[in-house]
Amino acid sequence: MNTFPSKLVEDAVNELSRLPGIGRKTALRLALHLLKKNKDIALSLGNALINMRQNINFCSVCHNISDTDICPICADNKRDKSTICVIEDVRDMIAIENTQQYMGVYHILGGIISPMDGIGPDNLNIESLINKVRENKVKEIILALRTTIEGDTTNFYLYKKLKDTEAKISVIARGMAIGDELEYTDEVTLGRSILNRTPYETFIVD
Amino acid sequence: MNTFPSKLVEDAVNELSRLPGIGRKTALRLALHLLKKNKDIALSLGNALINMRQNINFCSVCHNISDTDICPICADNKRDKSTICVIEDVRDMIAIENTQQYMGVYHILGGIISPMDGIGPDNLNIESLINKVRENKVKEIILALRTTIEGDTTNFYLYKKLKDTEAKISVIARGMAIGDELEYTDEVTLGRSILNRTPYETFIVD
Repeated sequence: MNTFPSKLVEDAVNELSRLPGIGRKTALRLALHLLKKNKDIALSLGNALINMRQNINFCSVCHNISDTDICPICADNKRDKSTICVIEDVRDMIAIENTQQYMGVYHILGGIISPMDGIGPDNLNIESLINKVRENKVKEIILALRTTIEGDTTNFYLYKKLKDTEAKISVIARGMAIGDELEYTDEVTLGRSILNRTPYETFIVD
Repeated sequence: MNTFPSKLVEDAVNELSRLPGIGRKTALRLALHLLKKNKDIALSLGNALINMRQNINFCSVCHNISDTDICPICADNKRDKSTICVIEDVRDMIAIENTQQYMGVYHILGGIISPMDGIGPDNLNIESLINKVRENKVKEIILALRTTIEGDTTNFYLYKKLKDTEAKISVIARGMAIGDELEYTDEVTLGRSILNRTPYETFIVD
Protein backbone atom coordinates (compact mmCIF):
# COMPACT_ATOMS: atom_id res chain seq x y z
CA MET A 1 0.00 0.00 0.00
CA ASN A 2 2.92 2.34 -0.60
CA THR A 3 1.96 3.30 -4.11
CA PHE A 4 -0.74 5.89 -3.70
CA PRO A 5 -1.50 7.73 -6.89
CA SER A 6 -2.83 10.70 -4.94
CA LYS A 7 -1.46 12.59 -1.94
CA LEU A 8 -5.00 13.78 -1.12
CA VAL A 9 -6.29 10.23 -0.86
CA GLU A 10 -3.21 9.18 1.07
CA ASP A 11 -3.78 11.95 3.61
CA ALA A 12 -7.42 10.95 4.04
CA VAL A 13 -6.44 7.28 4.44
CA ASN A 14 -3.80 8.19 7.02
CA GLU A 15 -6.30 10.18 9.06
CA LEU A 16 -9.07 7.58 8.79
CA SER A 17 -6.78 4.77 9.87
CA ARG A 18 -6.05 6.59 13.15
CA LEU A 19 -9.62 5.79 14.23
CA PRO A 20 -9.98 2.78 16.53
CA GLY A 21 -10.74 -0.46 14.70
CA ILE A 22 -10.04 0.99 11.26
CA GLY A 23 -6.98 -0.37 9.51
CA ARG A 24 -5.40 0.95 6.32
CA LYS A 25 -7.39 -1.34 4.03
CA THR A 26 -10.71 -0.28 5.55
CA ALA A 27 -9.59 3.35 5.49
CA LEU A 28 -8.87 3.10 1.77
CA ARG A 29 -12.25 1.46 1.17
CA LEU A 30 -13.97 4.30 3.03
CA ALA A 31 -12.00 6.97 1.14
CA LEU A 32 -12.85 5.40 -2.22
CA HIS A 33 -16.48 5.14 -1.18
CA LEU A 34 -16.51 8.87 -0.44
CA LEU A 35 -14.91 9.56 -3.82
CA LYS A 36 -17.51 7.49 -5.66
CA LYS A 37 -20.51 9.03 -3.93
CA ASN A 38 -21.92 12.52 -4.18
CA LYS A 39 -19.55 15.29 -3.10
CA ASP A 40 -21.98 16.42 -0.36
CA ILE A 41 -21.53 13.21 1.60
CA ALA A 42 -17.81 13.71 2.14
CA LEU A 43 -18.19 17.42 2.81
CA SER A 44 -20.96 17.06 5.37
CA LEU A 45 -19.07 14.25 7.11
CA GLY A 46 -15.93 16.34 7.29
CA ASN A 47 -17.81 19.40 8.49
CA ALA A 48 -19.83 17.45 11.06
CA LEU A 49 -16.63 16.11 12.62
CA ILE A 50 -14.95 19.52 12.69
CA ASN A 51 -18.08 21.17 14.02
CA MET A 52 -18.54 18.60 16.74
CA ARG A 53 -14.98 18.79 17.95
CA GLN A 54 -14.78 22.54 17.86
CA ASN A 55 -18.08 23.40 19.52
CA ILE A 56 -18.67 20.55 21.94
CA ASN A 57 -19.34 21.38 25.58
CA PHE A 58 -19.38 19.24 28.64
CA CYS A 59 -22.18 19.63 31.16
CA SER A 60 -20.82 21.50 34.18
CA VAL A 61 -22.97 19.38 36.49
CA CYS A 62 -22.58 15.79 35.26
CA HIS A 63 -19.72 15.99 32.68
CA ASN A 64 -22.01 14.68 29.97
CA ILE A 65 -21.37 15.87 26.42
CA SER A 66 -23.73 18.72 25.71
CA ASP A 67 -24.32 21.61 23.34
CA THR A 68 -25.15 23.87 26.27
CA ASP A 69 -23.48 24.59 29.62
CA ILE A 70 -25.93 22.29 31.39
CA CYS A 71 -27.05 19.13 29.60
CA PRO A 72 -30.74 18.49 28.80
CA ILE A 73 -31.02 15.84 31.52
CA CYS A 74 -29.56 17.99 34.31
CA ALA A 75 -31.68 20.92 33.10
CA ASP A 76 -34.86 18.82 33.13
CA ASN A 77 -37.09 19.70 36.11
CA LYS A 78 -38.83 16.34 35.95
CA ARG A 79 -35.62 14.45 36.73
CA ASP A 80 -34.95 13.53 40.33
CA LYS A 81 -31.75 15.36 41.29
CA SER A 82 -31.43 13.45 44.56
CA THR A 83 -30.60 10.19 42.76
CA ILE A 84 -27.31 10.06 40.88
CA CYS A 85 -26.33 7.19 38.63
CA VAL A 86 -22.55 6.94 38.23
CA ILE A 87 -21.48 5.74 34.76
CA GLU A 88 -18.38 5.54 32.63
CA ASP A 89 -19.37 7.48 29.55
CA VAL A 90 -22.19 8.78 27.36
CA ARG A 91 -22.87 5.40 25.78
CA ASP A 92 -23.88 4.05 29.18
CA MET A 93 -26.24 6.98 29.60
CA ILE A 94 -27.87 6.30 26.23
CA ALA A 95 -28.22 2.62 27.14
CA ILE A 96 -29.89 3.41 30.47
CA GLU A 97 -32.12 6.12 28.94
CA ASN A 98 -33.31 3.58 26.38
CA THR A 99 -34.61 1.34 29.18
CA GLN A 100 -36.99 4.17 30.23
CA GLN A 101 -36.64 2.88 33.80
CA TYR A 102 -34.59 5.69 35.31
CA MET A 103 -35.73 9.20 36.22
CA GLY A 104 -32.75 10.36 38.25
CA VAL A 105 -29.68 12.18 36.94
CA TYR A 106 -26.22 10.93 35.94
CA HIS A 107 -22.61 11.54 36.79
CA ILE A 108 -20.07 10.64 34.14
CA LEU A 109 -16.71 9.46 35.45
CA GLY A 110 -15.01 9.51 32.06
CA GLY A 111 -13.60 6.00 32.52
CA ILE A 112 -12.79 3.59 35.34
CA ILE A 113 -9.76 3.08 37.53
CA SER A 114 -7.37 0.91 35.55
CA PRO A 115 -3.72 0.92 36.61
CA MET A 116 -2.85 -1.19 33.55
CA ASP A 117 -3.93 1.70 31.31
CA GLY A 118 -2.42 4.28 33.63
CA ILE A 119 -5.81 5.58 34.76
CA GLY A 120 -5.99 6.45 38.44
CA PRO A 121 -8.69 8.21 40.49
CA ASP A 122 -7.18 11.60 39.64
CA ASN A 123 -7.86 11.08 35.94
CA LEU A 124 -11.58 10.64 36.55
CA ASN A 125 -14.40 13.00 37.54
CA ILE A 126 -14.47 11.72 41.12
CA GLU A 127 -13.68 14.91 43.05
CA SER A 128 -16.66 16.70 41.53
CA LEU A 129 -18.96 13.78 42.37
CA ILE A 130 -17.93 13.86 46.02
CA ASN A 131 -18.40 17.63 46.20
CA LYS A 132 -21.80 17.35 44.53
CA VAL A 133 -22.93 14.69 47.01
CA ARG A 134 -21.64 16.72 49.98
CA GLU A 135 -23.16 20.03 48.90
CA ASN A 136 -26.57 18.82 47.73
CA LYS A 137 -29.16 16.66 49.36
CA VAL A 138 -28.33 13.51 47.43
CA LYS A 139 -30.33 10.52 48.67
CA GLU A 140 -28.94 7.72 46.59
CA ILE A 141 -25.94 6.98 44.44
CA ILE A 142 -26.31 4.09 42.01
CA LEU A 143 -23.01 2.68 40.83
CA ALA A 144 -23.51 1.42 37.26
CA LEU A 145 -20.04 0.51 36.07
CA ARG A 146 -18.95 -2.50 34.07
CA THR A 147 -18.90 -5.77 36.01
CA THR A 148 -15.16 -6.39 35.70
CA ILE A 149 -12.30 -6.21 38.18
CA GLU A 150 -11.65 -2.59 37.15
CA GLY A 151 -15.33 -1.79 37.59
CA ASP A 152 -15.38 -3.43 41.02
CA THR A 153 -12.20 -1.59 42.04
CA THR A 154 -13.73 1.72 41.03
CA ASN A 155 -16.97 0.85 42.86
CA PHE A 156 -14.99 0.11 46.02
CA TYR A 157 -12.96 3.30 45.71
CA LEU A 158 -16.13 5.36 45.29
CA TYR A 159 -17.78 3.53 48.19
CA LYS A 160 -14.89 4.37 50.51
CA LYS A 161 -14.97 8.04 49.46
CA LEU A 162 -18.75 8.35 49.76
CA LYS A 163 -19.66 6.17 52.70
CA ASP A 164 -19.48 9.04 55.20
CA THR A 165 -22.02 11.12 53.30
CA GLU A 166 -25.79 11.00 53.81
CA ALA A 167 -26.33 9.22 50.53
CA LYS A 168 -27.28 5.56 50.26
CA ILE A 169 -24.92 3.74 47.91
CA SER A 170 -26.23 0.93 45.69
CA VAL A 171 -24.91 -1.11 42.78
CA ILE A 172 -26.98 -2.21 39.77
CA ALA A 173 -28.13 -5.83 40.07
CA ARG A 174 -26.01 -8.62 38.70
CA GLY A 175 -27.66 -11.87 37.76
CA MET A 176 -29.04 -13.84 34.90
CA ALA A 177 -29.87 -11.88 31.76
CA ILE A 178 -33.55 -11.93 30.76
CA GLY A 179 -34.15 -14.78 28.32
CA ASP A 180 -31.10 -16.79 29.41
CA GLU A 181 -31.13 -20.44 30.40
CA LEU A 182 -29.54 -21.61 33.67
CA GLU A 183 -27.57 -24.30 31.90
CA TYR A 184 -25.72 -21.75 29.78
CA THR A 185 -25.15 -19.11 32.46
CA ASP A 186 -21.61 -18.92 33.82
CA GLU A 187 -21.06 -20.01 37.43
CA VAL A 188 -20.06 -16.63 38.79
CA THR A 189 -23.17 -14.93 37.44
CA LEU A 190 -25.43 -17.78 38.52
CA GLY A 191 -23.87 -17.83 41.99
CA ARG A 192 -24.36 -14.08 42.27
CA SER A 193 -27.97 -14.33 41.15
CA ILE A 194 -28.66 -16.83 43.94
CA LEU A 195 -26.92 -14.72 46.59
CA ASN A 196 -28.75 -11.58 45.44
CA ARG A 197 -32.15 -13.22 45.11
CA THR A 198 -35.07 -10.81 45.44
CA PRO A 199 -38.45 -11.35 47.15
CA TYR A 200 -40.90 -12.60 44.57
CA GLU A 201 -43.36 -9.82 45.44
CA THR A 202 -40.99 -7.12 44.09
CA PHE A 203 -41.09 -9.07 40.88
CA ILE A 204 -44.78 -8.97 40.08
CA VAL A 205 -45.26 -5.20 39.92
CA ASP A 206 -47.10 -4.50 36.65
CA MET B 1 -30.16 5.47 20.65
CA ASN B 2 -32.72 8.26 20.42
CA THR B 3 -31.55 10.17 23.46
CA PHE B 4 -28.56 12.11 22.26
CA PRO B 5 -27.52 14.81 24.70
CA SER B 6 -25.85 16.76 21.90
CA LYS B 7 -27.02 17.70 18.41
CA LEU B 8 -23.39 18.10 17.35
CA VAL B 9 -22.54 14.55 18.30
CA GLU B 10 -25.77 13.29 16.75
CA ASP B 11 -24.91 14.96 13.44
CA ALA B 12 -21.43 13.45 13.47
CA VAL B 13 -22.85 10.00 14.28
CA ASN B 14 -25.42 10.31 11.49
CA GLU B 15 -22.75 11.20 8.97
CA LEU B 16 -20.30 8.52 10.15
CA SER B 17 -22.95 5.81 10.00
CA ARG B 18 -23.52 6.52 6.31
CA LEU B 19 -20.10 5.00 5.64
CA PRO B 20 -20.16 1.37 4.46
CA GLY B 21 -19.76 -1.16 7.27
CA ILE B 22 -20.21 1.43 10.02
CA GLY B 23 -23.38 1.10 12.08
CA ARG B 24 -24.70 3.59 14.60
CA LYS B 25 -22.97 1.97 17.56
CA THR B 26 -19.59 2.05 15.85
CA ALA B 27 -20.24 5.60 14.67
CA LEU B 28 -20.90 6.69 18.25
CA ARG B 29 -17.75 4.93 19.43
CA LEU B 30 -15.73 6.76 16.77
CA ALA B 31 -17.33 10.11 17.62
CA LEU B 32 -16.60 9.67 21.34
CA HIS B 33 -13.05 8.63 20.51
CA LEU B 34 -12.57 11.87 18.59
CA LEU B 35 -14.00 13.83 21.51
CA LYS B 36 -11.64 12.18 23.99
CA LYS B 37 -8.51 12.68 21.91
CA ASN B 38 -6.68 15.85 21.03
CA LYS B 39 -8.71 18.38 19.04
CA ASP B 40 -6.22 18.23 16.14
CA ILE B 41 -7.10 14.64 15.34
CA ALA B 42 -10.74 15.38 14.57
CA LEU B 43 -9.91 18.60 12.73
CA SER B 44 -7.27 17.06 10.50
CA LEU B 45 -9.53 14.08 9.74
CA GLY B 46 -12.39 16.39 8.79
CA ASN B 47 -10.16 18.61 6.69
CA ALA B 48 -8.45 15.68 4.96
CA LEU B 49 -11.83 14.30 3.86
CA ILE B 50 -13.09 17.68 2.62
CA ASN B 51 -9.81 18.40 0.89
CA MET B 52 -9.71 15.04 -0.81
CA ARG B 53 -13.27 15.24 -2.08
CA GLN B 54 -12.98 18.81 -3.26
CA ASN B 55 -9.65 18.65 -5.02
CA ILE B 56 -9.47 15.13 -6.36
CA ASN B 57 -8.82 14.60 -10.08
CA PHE B 58 -9.14 11.58 -12.26
CA CYS B 59 -6.40 10.74 -14.73
CA SER B 60 -7.63 11.66 -18.22
CA VAL B 61 -5.82 8.64 -19.66
CA CYS B 62 -6.61 5.75 -17.30
CA HIS B 63 -9.33 7.14 -14.96
CA ASN B 64 -7.12 6.54 -11.95
CA ILE B 65 -7.52 8.93 -9.02
CA SER B 66 -4.80 11.53 -9.26
CA ASP B 67 -3.81 14.95 -7.98
CA THR B 68 -2.80 15.97 -11.48
CA ASP B 69 -4.47 15.74 -14.89
CA ILE B 70 -2.36 12.70 -15.78
CA CYS B 71 -1.59 10.20 -13.02
CA PRO B 72 2.02 9.40 -12.01
CA ILE B 73 1.90 6.00 -13.70
CA CYS B 74 0.62 7.26 -17.06
CA ALA B 75 3.12 10.13 -16.88
CA ASP B 76 6.03 7.77 -16.17
CA ASN B 77 8.23 7.33 -19.25
CA LYS B 78 9.56 4.03 -17.96
CA ARG B 79 6.12 2.40 -18.08
CA ASP B 80 5.25 0.41 -21.19
CA LYS B 81 2.25 2.19 -22.73
CA SER B 82 1.60 -0.64 -25.18
CA THR B 83 0.45 -2.97 -22.39
CA ILE B 84 -2.77 -2.06 -20.63
CA CYS B 85 -4.02 -3.88 -17.55
CA VAL B 86 -7.79 -3.52 -17.14
CA ILE B 87 -8.88 -3.34 -13.50
CA GLU B 88 -11.92 -2.43 -11.44
CA ASP B 89 -10.61 0.29 -9.16
CA VAL B 90 -7.61 1.88 -7.51
CA ARG B 91 -7.29 -0.83 -4.88
CA ASP B 92 -6.53 -3.35 -7.63
CA MET B 93 -3.86 -1.05 -8.98
CA ILE B 94 -2.25 -0.75 -5.56
CA ALA B 95 -2.35 -4.55 -5.18
CA ILE B 96 -0.68 -5.11 -8.57
CA GLU B 97 1.88 -2.36 -7.99
CA ASN B 98 2.83 -4.02 -4.73
CA THR B 99 3.78 -7.20 -6.59
CA GLN B 100 6.44 -5.21 -8.51
CA GLN B 101 5.84 -7.55 -11.43
CA TYR B 102 4.11 -5.19 -13.83
CA MET B 103 5.63 -2.36 -15.85
CA GLY B 104 2.73 -1.57 -18.19
CA VAL B 105 -0.06 0.93 -17.59
CA TYR B 106 -3.60 0.53 -16.26
CA HIS B 107 -7.14 1.26 -17.32
CA ILE B 108 -9.68 1.61 -14.55
CA LEU B 109 -13.20 0.48 -15.43
CA GLY B 110 -14.77 1.88 -12.27
CA GLY B 111 -16.60 -1.39 -11.54
CA ILE B 112 -17.78 -4.48 -13.40
CA ILE B 113 -20.92 -5.33 -15.33
CA SER B 114 -23.47 -6.40 -12.74
CA PRO B 115 -27.13 -6.29 -13.79
CA MET B 116 -28.14 -7.12 -10.20
CA ASP B 117 -26.66 -3.81 -9.06
CA GLY B 118 -27.93 -2.00 -12.15
CA ILE B 119 -24.43 -1.57 -13.59
CA GLY B 120 -24.24 -2.03 -17.35
CA PRO B 121 -21.44 -1.40 -19.85
CA ASP B 122 -22.52 2.24 -20.20
CA ASN B 123 -21.80 2.91 -16.53
CA LEU B 124 -18.18 1.84 -16.90
CA ASN B 125 -15.13 3.38 -18.60
CA ILE B 126 -15.32 0.98 -21.55
CA GLU B 127 -15.77 3.41 -24.44
CA SER B 128 -12.56 5.23 -23.58
CA LEU B 129 -10.67 1.92 -23.37
CA ILE B 130 -11.77 0.91 -26.85
CA ASN B 131 -10.86 4.33 -28.29
CA LYS B 132 -7.48 4.19 -26.58
CA VAL B 133 -6.75 0.75 -28.00
CA ARG B 134 -7.88 1.80 -31.50
CA GLU B 135 -5.93 5.06 -31.56
CA ASN B 136 -2.67 3.91 -30.03
CA LYS B 137 -0.40 1.02 -30.81
CA VAL B 138 -1.53 -1.17 -27.94
CA LYS B 139 0.06 -4.62 -28.08
CA GLU B 140 -1.61 -6.37 -25.19
CA ILE B 141 -4.60 -5.98 -22.96
CA ILE B 142 -4.51 -7.90 -19.69
CA LEU B 143 -7.92 -8.43 -18.14
CA ALA B 144 -7.45 -8.47 -14.36
CA LEU B 145 -10.97 -8.50 -12.96
CA ARG B 146 -12.35 -10.51 -10.07
CA THR B 147 -12.85 -14.21 -10.80
CA THR B 148 -16.62 -14.22 -10.34
CA ILE B 149 -19.52 -14.55 -12.79
CA GLU B 150 -19.71 -10.75 -13.03
CA GLY B 151 -15.98 -10.57 -13.68
CA ASP B 152 -16.22 -13.27 -16.36
CA THR B 153 -19.19 -11.51 -17.97
CA THR B 154 -17.23 -8.26 -18.12
CA ASN B 155 -14.19 -10.07 -19.50
CA PHE B 156 -16.33 -11.59 -22.25
CA TYR B 157 -17.95 -8.25 -23.09
CA LEU B 158 -14.55 -6.57 -23.34
CA TYR B 159 -13.20 -9.46 -25.42
CA LYS B 160 -16.04 -9.09 -27.94
CA LYS B 161 -15.49 -5.35 -28.16
CA LEU B 162 -11.73 -5.61 -28.52
CA LYS B 163 -11.16 -8.75 -30.53
CA ASP B 164 -11.09 -6.88 -33.86
CA THR B 165 -8.27 -4.61 -32.74
CA GLU B 166 -4.56 -5.33 -33.13
CA ALA B 167 -4.12 -5.98 -29.43
CA LYS B 168 -3.62 -9.41 -27.94
CA ILE B 169 -6.10 -10.06 -25.14
CA SER B 170 -5.08 -12.07 -22.09
CA VAL B 171 -6.52 -12.84 -18.68
CA ILE B 172 -4.53 -13.13 -15.45
CA ALA B 173 -3.81 -16.75 -14.49
CA ARG B 174 -6.21 -18.64 -12.28
CA GLY B 175 -4.94 -21.57 -10.27
CA MET B 176 -3.68 -22.61 -6.89
CA ALA B 177 -2.56 -19.83 -4.58
CA ILE B 178 1.12 -19.95 -3.59
CA GLY B 179 1.47 -21.88 -0.32
CA ASP B 180 -1.83 -23.76 -0.72
CA GLU B 181 -2.25 -27.52 -0.41
CA LEU B 182 -4.05 -29.52 -3.10
CA GLU B 183 -6.26 -31.19 -0.55
CA TYR B 184 -7.77 -27.89 0.55
CA THR B 185 -8.09 -26.25 -2.87
CA ASP B 186 -11.64 -26.11 -4.27
CA GLU B 187 -12.40 -28.29 -7.30
CA VAL B 188 -13.04 -25.48 -9.74
CA THR B 189 -9.73 -23.79 -9.00
CA LEU B 190 -7.82 -27.09 -9.02
CA GLY B 191 -9.48 -28.12 -12.30
CA ARG B 192 -8.58 -24.78 -13.82
CA SER B 193 -4.99 -25.05 -12.63
CA ILE B 194 -4.67 -28.41 -14.39
CA LEU B 195 -6.21 -27.13 -17.61
CA ASN B 196 -4.02 -24.02 -17.58
CA ARG B 197 -0.81 -25.85 -16.64
CA THR B 198 2.34 -24.01 -17.74
CA PRO B 199 5.61 -25.47 -19.13
CA TYR B 200 7.97 -26.04 -16.23
CA GLU B 201 10.69 -24.03 -17.97
CA THR B 202 8.69 -20.79 -17.64
CA PHE B 203 8.66 -21.52 -13.97
CA ILE B 204 12.33 -21.58 -13.16
CA VAL B 205 13.25 -18.06 -14.23
CA ASP B 206 15.15 -16.51 -11.29
